[in-house]
This record gives sequence, structure tokens and C-alpha cells, in this order.
Amino acid sequence: MSRWEPNARGRLEQAALALYGERGFEQVTVAEIAGRAGLTERTFFRHYADKREVLFAGASALQEILVGAVEEAPDAAAPMEVVAAALAAVGAMFDERRDLVRQRQAVIAANPELQERELIKLAALATALAGALRDRGVPEPAASLTGQTGIAVFRVAFERWIDDPGRRGLAEVVRESFDELRTLAAGPSV
Amino acid sequence: MSRWEPNARGRLEQAALALYGERGFEQVTVAEIAGRAGLTERTFFRHYADKREVLFAGASALQEILVGAVEEAPDAAAPMEVVAAALAAVGAMFDERRDLVRQRQAVIAANPELQERELIKLAALATALAGALRDRGVPEPAASLTGQTGIAVFRVAFERWIDDPGRRGLAEVVRESFDELRTLAAGPSV
Repeated sequence: MSRWEPNARGRLEQAALALYGERGFEQVTVAEIAGRAGLTERTFFRHYADKREVLFAGASALQEILVGAVEEAPDAAAPMEVVAAALAAVGAMFDERRDLVRQRQAVIAANPELQERELIKLAALATALAGALRDRGVPEPAASLTGQTGIAVFRVAFERWIDDPGRRGLAEVVRESFDELRTLAAGPSV
Repeated sequence: MSRWEPNARGRLEQAALALYGERGFEQVTVAEIAGRAGLTERTFFRHYADKREVLFAGASALQEILVGAVEEAPDAAAPMEVVAAALAAVGAMFDERRDLVRQRQAVIAANPELQERELIKLAALATALAGALRDRGVPEPAASLTGQTGIAVFRVAFERWIDDPGRRGLAEVVRESFDELRTLAAGPSV
């Protein structure tokens, strides 16, 4: 067998998500994932540290893209606009992987430990966005408020997109959700 | 020794927070907490299931108070106004316990597992607020957007209050943070 395996990483991810969905994340072994993908365990471990990493390997790439988008936004753009545009910009990445993203979300929804990991990932994204805004000169507390509320809006938009029976793009749902936040936040002071 | 121990629960909490701060959460035993409080382990377990519960026992009371405040808000109040008022209303509870809350926060900041637990608690509060808004007739996605962003604003306000060297009340910082959200969210559409 050749050591070069075409799209091994993608095949392992598809096999893992299918097996987690069929039998539950806890029950599946790395050997089974590799077998389903027609690959060896050794190949699995060249791509992923463990079976949980299959679900979270995209988090650092997502964070880099978001932080990069904030860094490169026009100087004149307001903080919430910068964060909304960055979150909308990653929409296409999710749209392309729509079925895999839905499978992943169902696996996470079924496992409290994975839900905790997902919350930690989202909290880290909010902190990273706030840091990138401070680097642009946005003062506190505006940077943290924008990072935290931006991720809160993204969570709601993401769930709407996941549940949407149609084929609306995530970017569109994200933009709409930020528009709704503006309306909701514009209410009278307390 | 009498079985009735005046303020046993409060003494156990104070002893636990002091010990966690001195030696780290992981290192402290229930026997040590009880000893520091001048009480028995048996008394400890009448009040708390384990040493982690000392840090999180207040979460369900907090959730009940917040949900109650949303339920009892005037019919005419807008969703974000209802959530902001509910979160400001719990400020006094935190102000009264300022030193204990700060001790608790330092313990949590030093321990990743406790930070995860805190994130789960906050996520549950956001979900509970969204549910209480739906019960008032607020449609989705407004209910979830308001619950999630409301808790995001509260987190930032809470951290500002914790770090504040002065004696500003939490309610004041919460109101100010919601005002800032309004300004931030009012920016141009993307």
C-alpha cells in the first residue's frame, strides 16, 4: 500500500462523523474510523491527535481567519461592523461544508463533554476578536463588548442556519442577525 | 456538640474560598474545609454535595431570580430592556458579597476545569433568559439574540466590576455596559 493516500484527512473526517452519528462519539474507536476510511491507524494519527480532534481541528484555522479579517478591515470601520464583516466572511467556508457541519453539530449536541469543548472554543474566539480589536486601537470595554456580543450573535445565526431547511448562506443569516441586534439594542435605556 | 450550627453554610463557604485561594482548588479536601470552619465533614455534606458545589451552589438561585424578573417585567417593556433590568437587579446580591465573589473569581481563573463549569453555567443562563422571553411572547430569533447578547454584556460588566478598584455597584456597571452595546450596535450595516 502506498504511503500517499489521496485526501486521507477528508476521508478520515467523513468516516469519523458518520460513525459518531451512527453509534455515538464515545463508542467509536480510532481503529474503526481508519477502517471505514480504508486507511490505517498510523495514517489517522498522522492527521489527528485523537478522535476528539477530528471535531475541533478547524477551530484554530477559524480563529486565524477571523483575527486576520479584523486586522485587515478598513481603518474607518466601526468595531461592530468589523466583527460582523469578519463573521460573515467565514460563512462561505461553512456553506461549502454544510452537510459535514450539520453532522458535526448533531454529534456535539448528543454529548455534554463535546458541548463543553465547543463552549470553550467559542469563548476563545470571543477573546481573540476582542484582542484583535484592541490591536486596532479600540479601547476597553468596547473591544470586549464587541467580541463577546459578536460571538453571541454568531451562535444564534449559526443555529438558525443549521436548522434552516432551505439553502440560505450563513453569511446572509449572520448579516441579518447583526441587523436584528441593532434593532433590539436600540430600545430605551433602563 | 450541638447539631445546630449557626450559619454553617456561610462559614463553610468562607473556609473553602480561603483554602482554595491559599493552596489551589485541587489540593484542598472536604475535611480541611470543615476543620477550618470548626465543623464536621458530616455538616459539610448536609450543605454541599462536594467541594466544587461550594463555588456553583448559587447558580440555580441566580437563574430563578433572573427568570422571575423577566416574567414580572411590564408587558410593554422591550426584550433587551427586560433582560438589562433583570441583570441589573441581581447587582445588589453581588455587591453585598463583593469580597467573597472576588475570592471565588480568582479561584476559578486559576483552574481550567472550573472555568469550563462557569462557561456552562453562563450558557444555561442565556438559554433560560431566552426561554423566559419566549414565554412573554417574544419571537425567535429575537429571544435567543437577546438572551445570548444579554449574558455576553453581563460577563463584560461583571469583569469590569471585579477589576474596579472603587466601590461602584454592579447594577451601575451593567446599565452602563448595555448603554455601550446600544452605541456599538448602532453602527452602519455591513
